[in-house]
Amino acid sequence: MSTAGRRAVAVVNGAESLLNTLADAGVEVCFTNPGTTELHLVGALDSVPRMRAVLGLFEGVATGAADGYARIAGKPAATLLHLGPGLGHGLSNLHNARRANSPVVNIVGDHPTYHKPYDPPLESDIETVARSLRGPVRRPANAAGVRPDAVSTIAAALEPPGQIATLIMPADVSWSDGVGTDGGADGTPVRPRPTPAATSVVVERIADVLRGGDEAALIIGGPAGRAAGLCAASRIAAGTGARVFLETYSSRLEHGAGLPSFPRLGFYPEGVLGQLDGVRHVIVAGTPVPVAFFAYPGRPSCLIPDGAQAHVLAEVGQDAVAALTALADLVAPDHEPAVTEPGRPGLPSGPLTVENWPAVIGALLPEHAIVVDETISSGIGLPAATAGAPRHDVLAMCGGAMGEGLPLAVGAAVAAPSRPVIALEADGCAIYTLSALWTQARENLNITNVILNNRSYAILREEWHRLGPGDSDPHTNRLLDLGEPNIDFVGLARAFGVPGSRATTAEELAEQFARAVTEPGPYLIEAVIPPVA
Amino acid sequence: MSTAGRRAVAVVNGAESLLNTLADAGVEVCFTNPGTTELHLVGALDSVPRMRAVLGLFEGVATGAADGYARIAGKPAATLLHLGPGLGHGLSNLHNARRANSPVVNIVGDHPTYHKPYDPPLESDIETVARSLRGPVRRPANAAGVRPDAVSTIAAALEPPGQIATLIMPADVSWSDGVGTDGGADGTPVRPRPTPAATSVVVERIADVLRGGDEAALIIGGPAGRAAGLCAASRIAAGTGARVFLETYSSRLEHGAGLPSFPRLGFYPEGVLGQLDGVRHVIVAGTPVPVAFFAYPGRPSCLIPDGAQAHVLAEVGQDAVAALTALADLVAPDHEPAVTEPGRPGLPSGPLTVENWPAVIGALLPEHAIVVDETISSGIGLPAATAGAPRHDVLAMCGGAMGEGLPLAVGAAVAAPSRPVIALEADGCAIYTLSALWTQARENLNITNVILNNRSYAILREEWHRLGPGDSDPHTNRLLDLGEPNIDFVGLARAFGVPGSRATTAEELAEQFARAVTEPGPYLIEAVIPPVA
Repeated sequence: MSTAGRRAVAVVNGAESLLNTLADAGVEVCFTNPGTTELHLVGALDSVPRMRAVLGLFEGVATGAADGYARIAGKPAATLLHLGPGLGHGLSNLHNARRANSPVVNIVGDHPTYHKPYDPPLESDIETVARSLRGPVRRPANAAGVRPDAVSTIAAALEPPGQIATLIMPADVSWSDGVGTDGGADGTPVRPRPTPAATSVVVERIADVLRGGDEAALIIGGPAGRAAGLCAASRIAAGTGARVFLETYSSRLEHGAGLPSFPRLGFYPEGVLGQLDGVRHVIVAGTPVPVAFFAYPGRPSCLIPDGAQAHVLAEVGQDAVAALTALADLVAPDHEPAVTEPGRPGLPSGPLTVENWPAVIGALLPEHAIVVDETISSGIGLPAATAGAPRHDVLAMCGGAMGEGLPLAVGAAVAAPSRPVIALEADGCAIYTLSALWTQARENLNITNVILNNRSYAILREEWHRLGPGDSDPHTNRLLDLGEPNIDFVGLARAFGVPGSRATTAEELAEQFARAVTEPGPYLIEAVIPPVA
Repeated sequence: MSTAGRRAVAVVNGAESLLNTLADAGVEVCFTNPGTTELHLVGALDSVPRMRAVLGLFEGVATGAADGYARIAGKPAATLLHLGPGLGHGLSNLHNARRANSPVVNIVGDHPTYHKPYDPPLESDIETVARSLRGPVRRPANAAGVRPDAVSTIAAALEPPGQIATLIMPADVSWSDGVGTDGGADGTPVRPRPTPAATSVVVERIADVLRGGDEAALIIGGPAGRAAGLCAASRIAAGTGARVFLETYSSRLEHGAGLPSFPRLGFYPEGVLGQLDGVRHVIVAGTPVPVAFFAYPGRPSCLIPDGAQAHVLAEVGQDAVAALTALADLVAPDHEPAVTEPGRPGLPSGPLTVENWPAVIGALLPEHAIVVDETISSGIGLPAATAGAPRHDVLAMCGGAMGEGLPLAVGAAVAAPSRPVIALEADGCAIYTLSALWTQARENLNITNVILNNRSYAILREEWHRLGPGDSDPHTNRLLDLGEPNIDFVGLARAFGVPGSRATTAEELAEQFARAVTEPGPYLIEAVIPPVA
């Protein structure tokens, strides 16, 4: 047998095989907080410069950053977590990533397989915990198995609409030699599986529903939150009179001047039912049928109004943009989308309030911004205030698990270093993953963090009034209060290497925000607003 | 049927039933970070004043505090966590608590059962994640089921040697009425099941081994780390010449003047094998047969020397103290324990180093202290420096998952408000659960935090040299470096309401430490030491 034409094959260890496989597939960033069992992977970074490693001091920073990266880059990052406890720390933001349908290649180091039966102190059931994320979990048996298992894991992460796919790397698999650089699988990039299309039968049936003239609502989400989907939805509204709503929390929403703008579905069930009042048909595209975020005694879970019918134009994971476009071509062939004219609110003045701070952002939002919105109860006014601002992306926390905003901003800034990232963050949320600020400083990321500090878990005070769990005033309940002692967010930022300042008036916020977005590197503004009444 | 003698039975909701059941059983403290699904439990705290609730701003603070509380109080605390993401955030320190054999009543709120099939954003697989902790997981079906399920959960937590027992509380079970205050189970405290004794046959067989004159090592752990176990082990050593070792990481070790003092087993496998060199018999009591913390290429997992035989005097969960005492009575009936004389090191001077800082603690440790030791690579000299200090308890992080020290201190201080708590903490570890400082401030806990800041993951640099994962110098690897930018721990503490100061010399550390331990409330000292060479 001739050897002519054969490439020279270097023998590498499992760790290098993994990093090469990831880089070959276009997975070029790894957000990590490694430990001893991951040290060969850390060492391999020296020999695989195609992989950029970003250190977080807590695994929830790494997993939230991987989510933010995927939303902006449109492809997965890898994580690298230390055993079961590291996966635990990262689990909450992996939950959020799963709900955002972000692809994540979730790598967890483990003890060598031969060491696990001895039940060393850090032994725990990684598989069981990883499976709770509903994506596949693989564990290569040896170094030769790394490349095929990694290829499968990347492909699984990219399965529409995006999954958390976990690869458990035993330390001995990382340190063992025995695999050639081209062994096991080819080096071509792993590409997303084509998003399945909704069938034309469904599109035509829904077109008939809309032509019937009954009042209808169209709820769009997922990839339909970007320009093409928004424009198709706007045409449908123009052609049929259907009311269009955005899902409550979008993984990536394009917003601002030149784009159609629609109201978001509310957070509370009666709010959603009010928005859908009188509707006979509820059509969803790229988002599930609306469901109450939390349950309340005597209130429904499913938010389709009585007597209305639900129709699925495109399931989550189907091509919602193509389905909306096809539907628009049927019911509104001659209609143009209605887009928002450029226009910013005037700069407010006086003490900062939950009502006036969004106008400062709307007035001063820079071009091409990425806005991370984890403002919870403080951000109600933000969409209206920014509707006519320069076109931007809004990343919301989709899974409801607080503490993703600062890491999302890290991931977005790594994915798009030339764009200004604005992290709008509730005080209670910011504390969970505070050390993301350190990563922002280390990587000199262009992030302006605005912490809305109302010194309380304000959302829980609102929920208290709704749920009525006790006779007392929620303001007297110490478990809902973050103001004893007050937290000095400017001090926290500076201690992590991020400059910052405090704003208590709209003028101060405007001056500080305008300056921060033009300066390179991270900055933090603590915007002090009154607690909810 | 006569109703004479019947008590009046108030009808309460499931939330109140749970808190009453916990308090009846002596579970009187709840460490929590609640959310909407737990609000009825938060509200019920107003009507069940026997339960003290302590707020953490991150669930890992709550779970680590429950571990620390259990170690000092000798009974479980409850946690109260928000759904699957809250359990995820708390998982790492629940792992540590499991490895410390601490009983924990781990309460996780959930959506109402009827709401879960709608797959709302915060829905996740709580059972699967909780089961990874290896304790039982219960979910009451209705309010009447809360009391029996809670009684079973508390009893399971107390099963020797202590377990993480989880109770999932659906929100509708919390808010539903329908159970009398004495319904379902009686109100007597749940007591720990008696610890099973080792059989006398085992004790006699091991006595014969020791009498045989072969060189023997006795490794003690768990409850044998307290005075009675230490004294029995010392008698055995005096009567037989056996070498006694402490397990590497003790959940609660009594240490100091008037107590026998033994070396700890080392962290690295070759260190342990060196300690056990020449030994023909390895006897364990209250701790597993020694196993390597991490695996290394070509090094063994099981640390019993070749040719030596392992003997289990008392399994983990058996009564190790009784077994050691019975053994001592057989092999050393006339021997007294050898105890450490009072004696403190002299105060060192000059720049702080990894070698001299423990002497400052040894010289100035107050009476009746509780020392939390999460110093990792910086604390090698601590046991020797404190051996003659006033008698104190040492709580180590047993599960190897970094980030438990500050929460352990919270729990210990809540359990023993009259004792000074000293948290000795590595910089990398402190960041994971930093907001424990806020809880220390809010509860005005008497904790002196000393952060050993070497500006690196020093343990990983040590492991790098051992594992040899790359050709480069680990000091050049950015993933092991915490000094870019430097973290200002004094600034972090102040921002969370804890006063603090920085020490770079032994004199400064001595002055600041002596002052901090005499003042009430929390304090933080950042002790800057050089990075490892």
